Amino acid sequence: MAKVAVIMGSDSDFDVVKKCLIILEKFKVDYEAEVISAHRNPDKLFQYAKTAMDRGIEVIIGAAGKAAHLPGVIAGITTLPVIGIPIQTSFQGGLDSLLSIVQMPAGVPVATVAVNGAENAGILAVQILAGKYPDLRDELIAYKQRLNEEVQEKNVRVHELLK
Amino acid sequence: MAKVAVIMGSDSDFDVVKKCLIILEKFKVDYEAEVISAHRNPDKLFQYAKTAMDRGIEVIIGAAGKAAHLPGVIAGITTLPVIGIPIQTSFQGGLDSLLSIVQMPAGVPVATVAVNGAENAGILAVQILAGKYPDLRDELIAYKQRLNEEVQEKNVRVHELLK
Amino acid sequence: MAKVAVIMGSDSDFDVVKKCLIILEKFKVDYEAEVISAHRNPDKLFQYAKTAMDRGIEVIIGAAGKAAHLPGVIAGITTLPVIGIPIQTSFQGGLDSLLSIVQMPAGVPVATVAVNGAENAGILAVQILAGKYPDLRDELIAYKQRLNEEVQEKNVRVHELLK
Amino acid sequence: MAKVAVIMGSDSDFDVVKKCLIILEKFKVDYEAEVISAHRNPDKLFQYAKTAMDRGIEVIIGAAGKAAHLPGVIAGITTLPVIGIPIQTSFQGGLDSLLSIVQMPAGVPVATVAVNGAENAGILAVQILAGKYPDLRDELIAYKQRLNEEVQEKNVRVHELLK
Amino acid sequence: MAKVAVIMGSDSDFDVVKKCLIILEKFKVDYEAEVISAHRNPDKLFQYAKTAMDRGIEVIIGAAGKAAHLPGVIAGITTLPVIGIPIQTSFQGGLDSLLSIVQMPAGVPVATVAVNGAENAGILAVQILAGKYPDLRDELIAYKQRLNEEVQEKNVRVHELLK
Amino acid sequence: MAKVAVIMGSDSDFDVVKKCLIILEKFKVDYEAEVISAHRNPDKLFQYAKTAMDRGIEVIIGAAGKAAHLPGVIAGITTLPVIGIPIQTSFQGGLDSLLSIVQMPAGVPVATVAVNGAENAGILAVQILAGKYPDLRDELIAYKQRLNEEVQEKNVRVHELLK
Amino acid sequence: MAKVAVIMGSDSDFDVVKKCLIILEKFKVDYEAEVISAHRNPDKLFQYAKTAMDRGIEVIIGAAGKAAHLPGVIAGITTLPVIGIPIQTSFQGGLDSLLSIVQMPAGVPVATVAVNGAENAGILAVQILAGKYPDLRDELIAYKQRLNEEVQEKNVRVHELLK
Amino acid sequence: MAKVAVIMGSDSDFDVVKKCLIILEKFKVDYEAEVISAHRNPDKLFQYAKTAMDRGIEVIIGAAGKAAHLPGVIAGITTLPVIGIPIQTSFQGGLDSLLSIVQMPAGVPVATVAVNGAENAGILAVQILAGKYPDLRDELIAYKQRLNEEVQEKNVRVHELLK
Repeated sequence: MAKVAVIMGSDSDFDVVKKCLIILEKFKVDYEAEVISAHRNPDKLFQYAKTAMDRGIEVIIGAAGKAAHLPGVIAGITTLPVIGIPIQTSFQGGLDSLLSIVQMPAGVPVATVAVNGAENAGILAVQILAGKYPDLRDELIAYKQRLNEEVQEKNVRVHELLK
Repeated sequence: MAKVAVIMGSDSDFDVVKKCLIILEKFKVDYEAEVISAHRNPDKLFQYAKTAMDRGIEVIIGAAGKAAHLPGVIAGITTLPVIGIPIQTSFQGGLDSLLSIVQMPAGVPVATVAVNGAENAGILAVQILAGKYPDLRDELIAYKQRLNEEVQEKNVRVHELLK
Repeated sequence: MAKVAVIMGSDSDFDVVKKCLIILEKFKVDYEAEVISAHRNPDKLFQYAKTAMDRGIEVIIGAAGKAAHLPGVIAGITTLPVIGIPIQTSFQGGLDSLLSIVQMPAGVPVATVAVNGAENAGILAVQILAGKYPDLRDELIAYKQRLNEEVQEKNVRVHELLK
Repeated sequence: MAKVAVIMGSDSDFDVVKKCLIILEKFKVDYEAEVISAHRNPDKLFQYAKTAMDRGIEVIIGAAGKAAHLPGVIAGITTLPVIGIPIQTSFQGGLDSLLSIVQMPAGVPVATVAVNGAENAGILAVQILAGKYPDLRDELIAYKQRLNEEVQEKNVRVHELLK
Repeated sequence: MAKVAVIMGSDSDFDVVKKCLIILEKFKVDYEAEVISAHRNPDKLFQYAKTAMDRGIEVIIGAAGKAAHLPGVIAGITTLPVIGIPIQTSFQGGLDSLLSIVQMPAGVPVATVAVNGAENAGILAVQILAGKYPDLRDELIAYKQRLNEEVQEKNVRVHELLK
Repeated sequence: MAKVAVIMGSDSDFDVVKKCLIILEKFKVDYEAEVISAHRNPDKLFQYAKTAMDRGIEVIIGAAGKAAHLPGVIAGITTLPVIGIPIQTSFQGGLDSLLSIVQMPAGVPVATVAVNGAENAGILAVQILAGKYPDLRDELIAYKQRLNEEVQEKNVRVHELLK
Repeated sequence: MAKVAVIMGSDSDFDVVKKCLIILEKFKVDYEAEVISAHRNPDKLFQYAKTAMDRGIEVIIGAAGKAAHLPGVIAGITTLPVIGIPIQTSFQGGLDSLLSIVQMPAGVPVATVAVNGAENAGILAVQILAGKYPDLRDELIAYKQRLNEEVQEKNVRVHELLK
Repeated sequence: MAKVAVIMGSDSDFDVVKKCLIILEKFKVDYEAEVISAHRNPDKLFQYAKTAMDRGIEVIIGAAGKAAHLPGVIAGITTLPVIGIPIQTSFQGGLDSLLSIVQMPAGVPVATVAVNGAENAGILAVQILAGKYPDLRDELIAYKQRLNEEVQEKNVRVHELLK
């Protein structure tokens, strides 16, 4: 059964969003990925968000660009944690997407990650799930260790460049 | 029967929005004004937008601030013209509200006016209605004439200051 | 007889503006398209805006970039609804165009769509005309339905990618 | 035992942060609140973040302004979910705080809420905890219901103003 | 006969614009000051700009805020040098006014000064006139000398504060 | 004898600046073009600005990018009119250059044109000189007429595209 | 003999700059403070910067607002380290000052601190001097320790508030 | 023994950072270059910054992008002067990096250079070291002279282009 729902507002967001899906697969977290537009499929999005918890979804990730209402609309309907990925645009590097997602009013949070930060949306979902599923905690610690080592290997390569 | 629906996302928007209502009253356009939050009353907003046309609404005005999804969500549901008023915030003078409202994706427009431009939202609604109700056209011409004269009177007063 | 006038400030705006013309053609709305610069053809623009209503124009769309005065100047002359399309520039993704168009003073609105949002300017014009021409309302409902279906088809394609 | 740690970078952030503490108290979630500066108490912050999980902390909230490194530094040390509250500043309404918190590199997310969005940081923490503590889920649903009703009551008051 | 025309878009700009008038009086340059709105008095502005040169105007200064089209519209009509004063607004400190004035298309310049820089608009007008009226050059040199001395006097006062 | 001095801060600005030189040649205005950096050739710039008027220079144009001090430094030294061309950068489309040039303190104006608006710097210089050299006035009127006609020709071409 | 020169572009910057002077006094570093405007006292600034090193100055701090050329102009003249303090303005919180100071071209650095960060300019000057004067190093370590303790005391006070 | 430490947050910063290393080599200043991420190698960065002074480091340069905490975290640990290089990003040309580095709180300065200004970080480090090592002062004067001459040579080339 899917634990994480990954919703993107447009199929053009897929290239960014797949970095999130790769993370979820790496952590063996079940997910479902859907293209649902807040503005073009409002009924479907409404039903999706309303029923998500009952279908076993524990975290929802929404990716959208420009007037990026998708994650905020979902957060208005469900009490599940909603993570927002602002998609980069040609307008100030995605400032429109970022502000449309992060500046939510009191009572209805969207946990916003960096512009195009799909990988981090995946990690954050795993961190949230790890509260309930302790095995994920160990995986996160191992992942953090690998990140650490990767940079140290890059350091070695830069040292070789400088010799 | 109301022709224009004026929806604000919060009662704190009322001080701005009332400039719009005054315009509608000046032009004797029926309206209904409602506080409905896109994020806190999603079901109600959904029903409201879905049924607006059948209830005789011809133009919808939505005012909202910060991650201002209200007019865009309405525009996703109805085919009526939707006018968006970005409410000024402490974040770059309301850039968050403006971008959340104006940067709508293809197919789902929101007719955006200036930050806090509630008066203009009212005028725009009247301009739209005037296509069908020609009496309003005459009123608009008279209004434009009064605007013109008001500035000329101000010019006289500035000339007096400079004497 | 033309119902919609589409004015662009420069022929370099044509690639964006034609998305608007395609929408108007799709909805079988008569239009005339003109290149008139607010700064280089001021007399012509002045006359154009002054006579537009008498020539049967019902909505005017103005597209311009940088210090984009075109739609605002038109709105100062006519009482017809004026829609503004901010053209993308190399300056903060078109923030100059957007602010020059949307931040109009009280009394003289320009219905602003997204940066490069020419398609939406067309849709908004049709939504405005639909108040008077009810057949367009049905077309808009059908169009909204097609938008909805297109995203659902994209969803199917993304699901296939993920298998 | 505390489940949520609320760290602020300066005691001047307290007025904003207390809205978060009120939420946590409302949901009867244990918390500890600390003033620890990323730049002035680096050792203490380091130790705090390193030992937080072992001391039973499940979510960490960090509030900071300007070059707001606090939540990001914590997120680099722990695998717990870290929520960031950008504090409003006199620089573009807090754009410095927002970007310093939200634009984290791949692998190290900070779940960012709106500028000064302390209330939402609290709600998000409760939403995260509700995955493990189902009673909180019911509280969240009741809270969402109250938010909904509060806006409807405000709507009634606005209607009375308009009579 | 007036040599400089100072046009403001609104009488609310007068408090800023009067710093310009004081400069012109200090340099004994004749001027006329008018409130003419580009959007509310388009015919009048048009006639004004068209006839300015024949009436002996040699430099035109236009002050406007928000979607500040006034100086650009004038520059489209006349070949006189046009100086633009962006008026400060609540939107990013007047970024809307600044961009609407400075970002003019090729062929139609507006000589833009700082936001609220009315004093400098006056000085710039005098510098332009000094090409033809050499007495003004001497006055400008004396003015520059006074500026220099004023700062040196301030320096003395700061030194006294520091004793 | 040169009437206009065109100073660029770096030879990398030459591609932009040459549009200015072409305008000056078109109007048969003598000019001298120099690469002088405010930060790398301060003595030379100082001497240049100090002696410009005595050498017969009547207008100085300065082009610079990033922390673009060149035109402002010149304006601090001479009482000639100084025109500033902000060069486009990779930082927000040249916002750094624009603000460094336009936001001059009271008493020391720089007549700022659009980012990369070298053509307009040339036109503005000619407009300034035309006060003293009336032949240039006629040329400016003819130039304005040609601009007008060029857009009308473009309009014809767009009409042909649309047939 | 003065080791640090603190130059401000206007006496209105003094309220900010005095936080820098207090730091220098705390560390017993000799300084001289001058009001010299880059645009109004160019000769004096030029001479000042040229002779600073010979007069024993080791670090120069320049504070300026808007088109803040002061520190950059100094850095173009001397090879001493130059620290820039961008003064807050009403334009986007001082973005104009910040960009005018920090975006210096290659070869001519200005060590920029935060908007209004006069205290930090003082500390940075001391850190630079400490390379040569080892006693200052010990003072800096003690200062850092006091900063650390001050925040811990604030933490105690916040804990008391929360009891 | 290394006098300057150059730390970059990611090996992707190396292309920018190497301009800094070339400067240090030109001035024969010993350096060590390391890739250490503030968020991925927090322990290592902590140890590095703590021990830098004892290992003879006299200046630390930190380069980082996006939520660029690296130089600020180092500055929180050591009393050595810390220079920050904001790396250009796709978000507003690196505004995120710039603000994350420059907007440090009182007491903990980072000497910030321009976005991608690695060359200037190197020069600034040399200027700082020159206080203690007078030979470097002579080299800096020679370097400044070469910069001056290079622009003058470019001037000659532009003059040839214009013949």
